Amino acid sequence: MSTSFASAAEFKEILAHLPGPDSEVYAQAQARNAQLTKPPGALGRLEDLALWYCSWRGDPRAQIEHPTVIVFVGNHGVTAQGVSAFPADVTAQMVANFKAGGAAINQLSACAGATLTVHPLELERPTADISQAPAMQAGEFIAALATGWQSVDPQSDCLVVGEMGIGNTTPAAAMALALLGGQAEAWTGAGTGVTGPALEHKSSVVARAVQANDGCQSDGLEVLRCLGGREISAMAGAIARAKSERIPVILDGFICTAAALALHAVEATALDHTIAGHLSDEAAHPAMLRHLCKEPLLSLGLRLGEGSGAALAIGILKAALACHSGMATFAEAGVSDT
Amino acid sequence: MSTSFASAAEFKEILAHLPGPDSEVYAQAQARNAQLTKPPGALGRLEDLALWYCSWRGDPRAQIEHPTVIVFVGNHGVTAQGVSAFPADVTAQMVANFKAGGAAINQLSACAGATLTVHPLELERPTADISQAPAMQAGEFIAALATGWQSVDPQSDCLVVGEMGIGNTTPAAAMALALLGGQAEAWTGAGTGVTGPALEHKSSVVARAVQANDGCQSDGLEVLRCLGGREISAMAGAIARAKSERIPVILDGFICTAAALALHAVEATALDHTIAGHLSDEAAHPAMLRHLCKEPLLSLGLRLGEGSGAALAIGILKAALACHSGMATFAEAGVSDT
Repeated sequence: MSTSFASAAEFKEILAHLPGPDSEVYAQAQARNAQLTKPPGALGRLEDLALWYCSWRGDPRAQIEHPTVIVFVGNHGVTAQGVSAFPADVTAQMVANFKAGGAAINQLSACAGATLTVHPLELERPTADISQAPAMQAGEFIAALATGWQSVDPQSDCLVVGEMGIGNTTPAAAMALALLGGQAEAWTGAGTGVTGPALEHKSSVVARAVQANDGCQSDGLEVLRCLGGREISAMAGAIARAKSERIPVILDGFICTAAALALHAVEATALDHTIAGHLSDEAAHPAMLRHLCKEPLLSLGLRLGEGSGAALAIGILKAALACHSGMATFAEAGVSDT
Repeated sequence: MSTSFASAAEFKEILAHLPGPDSEVYAQAQARNAQLTKPPGALGRLEDLALWYCSWRGDPRAQIEHPTVIVFVGNHGVTAQGVSAFPADVTAQMVANFKAGGAAINQLSACAGATLTVHPLELERPTADISQAPAMQAGEFIAALATGWQSVDPQSDCLVVGEMGIGNTTPAAAMALALLGGQAEAWTGAGTGVTGPALEHKSSVVARAVQANDGCQSDGLEVLRCLGGREISAMAGAIARAKSERIPVILDGFICTAAALALHAVEATALDHTIAGHLSDEAAHPAMLRHLCKEPLLSLGLRLGEGSGAALAIGILKAALACHSGMATFAEAGVSDT
C-alpha cells in the first residue's frame, strides 16, 4: 500500500482502513503448533508470539529474515525550559555517533541481524516550546508523519522504531497527560537523569504544556502535533505504515509508546500489529502499557531510547518463529505424543 | 584446569578451590562503562551483566564468541510410579530428535550462534526408583558427574547446560525438598502437564522419595546421588567445570536449578559464575531462585527444559557485551557528557 496523505484528516482515513491479521492463517499456525515435539504450551509466550506473527504475515510457517530498526531524531524547543540533564547539542552529536556505528543501537541492531537507518528531522529547526505554543504547525506535522510513513521498507518483516532527541521525555509525558489524564507528576520521570527539584520543575513544565495547548486532548493527532515532536510524529507515521504493509512492530520504551498512544486514541485497532518489546525504567511507562493492555517481553531496567529495548526483543521474536517454523512435528520425529 | 576426581570427597575438594572473578578487571570494565555514549545506568541490567561477565573472563572488553549448549539426557526409575504425562520411551526418541535437529533447543541454539552437543547417559539403564532407594550407587554417581565435567569445552566462553529425561521434575522436586525443606506439595509442579489427582500422587511420590533416602539431606552431593539422576549430576559436574575454566554459565529452569542447588549446598560460592537465564513456569522455580538470590533475565512462561530458557538468554548476554565492548566513548564520539 503506497497511499499518501496531505492532511491529518486523510491520515485518519487511512488509519481507519488498514488491514488486519489473517484468522485462517492463525488457525493453521495453531494446528502446526499443537504438533510440535514439546509438551503443549511448554514454550509459553514464544508460542503466542509465533501465532500472532504468522497471522500478520499471512504465512503459517513464517520466519523473520529482514528485521529493520529506524531511529528518528528531533530537537525540542522545550529544552529552553531546562528539562534535560544533557545540552541540546548532544542530539546532533549522537546522529554522528549513530552514523559512525558507536551507539548502543548500532551494537543491538547488529546483534539482531537488523538493518539500521537513521532519520534526522530538521535538527537545526527545533519544534516550538510546548510550554508556550503548539510544537508544530499543520504542515510541519504532516511532513514529519510522512517522513515516518515513507521511511518504512516494505520488504522488512519486523520493524523497530526508535528515537533520539534531547528533552523528548517532556513532550512524551505531556502527550500521556493529555491523552490519559491524571496528574503531571505521575507522567514525568527522570529521562536521562533528572532528579529532585529539577524533576519537580520538569513536571511543572509538562503541566504547563498541556494548559498552553488546551483543546488538543480530544484528538490523538492534535496531541501529537501540539505536544509531540518531529521524531515522535515520524514514529507514529512509521507504525501506521507498517500496519499497511502487515509488518509486525516491536514497540520500544516511553517515547515510542507515547507515539503509539496517539494512534490508539484515533483508532483502537491501530496497534494490533505491535507488541511491547520491553518495560522501560522510565517511571510512567508501565501505566502507558497497562492502558494499551500490552505485556512487555523484557524487563531489564533500560531507559535509553534509540529503539534499544525493542531491538533487544527482536531476538526473542526471531527465536519464537525459529521454534515454530523449524521444529519437527511428533510424526516427523517419531516421538510419542501422549 | 584438567583436574579429575574419583570420589565425592575429591570433587568437594576441587569445588572448594575453584577460581573467582577478577576484581581488577571488574574495576577496569566499570571505568569503561562510565565513558560510553549513553546516560549513566541507561542500559540497566545489561551494564551489570557486562561487568560481571568481563570480571569472570579477565577481559575488561570481552565479547561472547563461542557460546555452547550441552544437553544431558537420563532415564528415571521413578517413572514406574506414574509421575509423568509422557512414557519413558520419549527420552530416547527425543535424543534422536536432537540429533536430527528437530527440537526446540536446536532452533534456539542456532539463533544464539551456539554449538549444541547432546550427551545421553545410559538411557537403557534408568536410575533406581527414588521412592524406594537411592537413585545411584557411588560409582554410578561419580561417572555421571565426570561425564558432565569432561563435556565442557574449555574454549567455550558462555555455557548453557540443559537436560531431557522423562520424569525428571520428580527428582528435582525431591532434591529441593531435601535441601530447602518445607512441604512436598510446594516443590511439586505440573512438569510436562500433570494436574489434579495425578499431581497429588506425584507430590506423594516426592515426599516418599525423601523419606526413603532419609539422611542424605545434610550433604548436597548425597542429595544429588540419592534423589537426582544421571543427567542432573552431569549438569552439576559441567557447572563446576565451567567455574574451573572461568566460563560464565546461564542457568536454565527447574531441573538445572536443582543441580545448582546441590552445588550451592556444598559450597556457597559454587554459583558465582552463573546467572539465572529465565523464570520457568514450573511452580516451584521462583522459590529456588529466591534461595539462590538470582534474579532471572527472562520471564516468558517457558517450561520445556532442554536448556531452552537459558539458550534464549544467551542473546541478551551477548547484546550486553556487544554494547559494553563495541560502543564509542564520549571522547571517541565527540559527544558532550554532561
